[in-house]
Amino acid sequence: MTNEKNADTSADGIDPGAPGSLMGAEIAEQPAILATLLAEAAAISEVADAVRARAPRFVLLAARGTSDHAALYAKYLVETRLGLPAGLASPSTMTLYGSRPDLRDVLFLGVSQSGASPDLVDSLTVAGECGATTVAVTNDPGSALASAAEFSVDVRAGAEKAVAATKTYTAELLALYLLLGGSAADAAALPDAAAATLAREDAVPVAAARYRFAERLVTTGRGFGYPTAREAALKLMETSYLSAQAFSTADLLHGPLAMIDSGVPVIAVATPDAGGEAVAPVVERLRGSGADVLVVGADPSGELPVVRDGVPPALAPVLDILPLQRLARQIALDRGENPDRPRGLSKVTHTR
Amino acid sequence: MTNEKNADTSADGIDPGAPGSLMGAEIAEQPAILATLLAEAAAISEVADAVRARAPRFVLLAARGTSDHAALYAKYLVETRLGLPAGLASPSTMTLYGSRPDLRDVLFLGVSQSGASPDLVDSLTVAGECGATTVAVTNDPGSALASAAEFSVDVRAGAEKAVAATKTYTAELLALYLLLGGSAADAAALPDAAAATLAREDAVPVAAARYRFAERLVTTGRGFGYPTAREAALKLMETSYLSAQAFSTADLLHGPLAMIDSGVPVIAVATPDAGGEAVAPVVERLRGSGADVLVVGADPSGELPVVRDGVPPALAPVLDILPLQRLARQIALDRGENPDRPRGLSKVTHTR
Repeated sequence: MTNEKNADTSADGIDPGAPGSLMGAEIAEQPAILATLLAEAAAISEVADAVRARAPRFVLLAARGTSDHAALYAKYLVETRLGLPAGLASPSTMTLYGSRPDLRDVLFLGVSQSGASPDLVDSLTVAGECGATTVAVTNDPGSALASAAEFSVDVRAGAEKAVAATKTYTAELLALYLLLGGSAADAAALPDAAAATLAREDAVPVAAARYRFAERLVTTGRGFGYPTAREAALKLMETSYLSAQAFSTADLLHGPLAMIDSGVPVIAVATPDAGGEAVAPVVERLRGSGADVLVVGADPSGELPVVRDGVPPALAPVLDILPLQRLARQIALDRGENPDRPRGLSKVTHTR
Repeated sequence: MTNEKNADTSADGIDPGAPGSLMGAEIAEQPAILATLLAEAAAISEVADAVRARAPRFVLLAARGTSDHAALYAKYLVETRLGLPAGLASPSTMTLYGSRPDLRDVLFLGVSQSGASPDLVDSLTVAGECGATTVAVTNDPGSALASAAEFSVDVRAGAEKAVAATKTYTAELLALYLLLGGSAADAAALPDAAAATLAREDAVPVAAARYRFAERLVTTGRGFGYPTAREAALKLMETSYLSAQAFSTADLLHGPLAMIDSGVPVIAVATPDAGGEAVAPVVERLRGSGADVLVVGADPSGELPVVRDGVPPALAPVLDILPLQRLARQIALDRGENPDRPRGLSKVTHTR
């Protein structure tokens, strides 16, 4: 399944010099990081209280790359838990086109692992000047983004060395849950469920073998499953260089379905809620037309099992991405690539 | 370049039975449809005035498929021309998760060619119940979406028979421009520029030949070029079944860049504004790393020329998509497919 040189290494036996060792170690750290974040949740509650006192009526989210998928998760939280309309900001309208919108009563959330991307810092700064309450969610409390924001949330994931973000993503998700209506008590079972999900690593090499020679792949999910589909596609692109495309399961029926045949595998994310229920008939339809579909999340005995004991459905994205991070890493290793150092990428991306 | 059976047919010599004839005819109709819409712009101005009287403070846009790219264009218009924050709605939060957000002072715009997609109708209805001013932008003024909305804009594109939407897309773009701060006078040169752009059809078979055997392709653009990149990717997926992925040029640097090598061609959309200027250095970087890049829009003498005489930059998306529609159709024909009837798709998609 894996070749000798790039054999998978367990969390216990990481060789720091081996390809994928950094990403493997950071994936394995996640249960402990989630536990730390919960233990320190009071700091996030304080920011949540301060933001609530402003009584925002709209929420704008700004992010890029992996953090954009955390922002998409936050959008679903804002709409379903806070009952407020939310949108993903287009930084270019403020940074390139010089737009100065009326942002009174707006909560502007910037999400960034490094907190260093200039266009995010600029758009958050402009948003504050335009009247928004600004909050930075970042892994570096000393970053430019955190300094530019009125309030700052530290996701406490520790230094992330692999270029492909893993632990900062799940830490951002949990921090956003705690910031946007969730409580540490509700999330108490999360670290153990994450550890139990990661313990099922035996399923990963089998699934990875299935995609050994795939050049393209489609991921899909609905509602709280959609951010996971997006993030899984990005991980696969970054580490394995395959063309992975993510679609909302609803959008999939509006066009992209035409290109899915037996040669384009599909990974469907089925959350334990109404979003996941809406995915099921589409999975049946895809399979009926001969497509190869792997479902993540619906069933703990599935091909890539997710353990959810005691975890509320709104936290499903924190767990569902875990086997998919492992899958992306394993496919890269099977192909002789080093997922720790994808070609052409650097850890901090300076877009303007 | 093209095989005999599927030879391209000019707008004058359409054979209604030949593959691609419907899509070809509808592409060719666009200048006349844009002219009609401008002549009838007063009806849209009335809706614009009524909406302005409500003084909305936030705009939500709901759409699927091709219309979602028109909605993305509308988002840039709202932010840059109306100076209001805007977001793309996630219909699932209201239709699947039962969210009932506080939408007072919100303008909720539903965009749909058919006006028939149940989840859009439901989400627009719920938005109205939650306090939003609702507007339907559709090609069927008798549709369920138009009936459910407080105000309705008819994009007047006539019946669209090809499954892949073309003329309804550009009609939606112009209708949204007229609804969101643009005037018919400013757009007066648009029909002629569209006709002049379509007259440069000789460039299309040459570009199509380049992608004859491509299995995957990346499109990219920034700001007003991003909706075009998204729509071009969808047209290519629908008609030619290749895995076309669209990325904001800023997001491209956050991960997807890793999978672009000399075997993954890139189509970059360069609008005649700050968005296009931000694309240029990324094109250079991609070419420097050996990628095959075709630039649409920047230069009227380019590989897929766009004629813009007298057309304001904010209307660039109406023109930039035209050669890309032709390109998608031609690639499908070259591959022996019928772009009028993509497999697995129907004209009206019933998502819930």
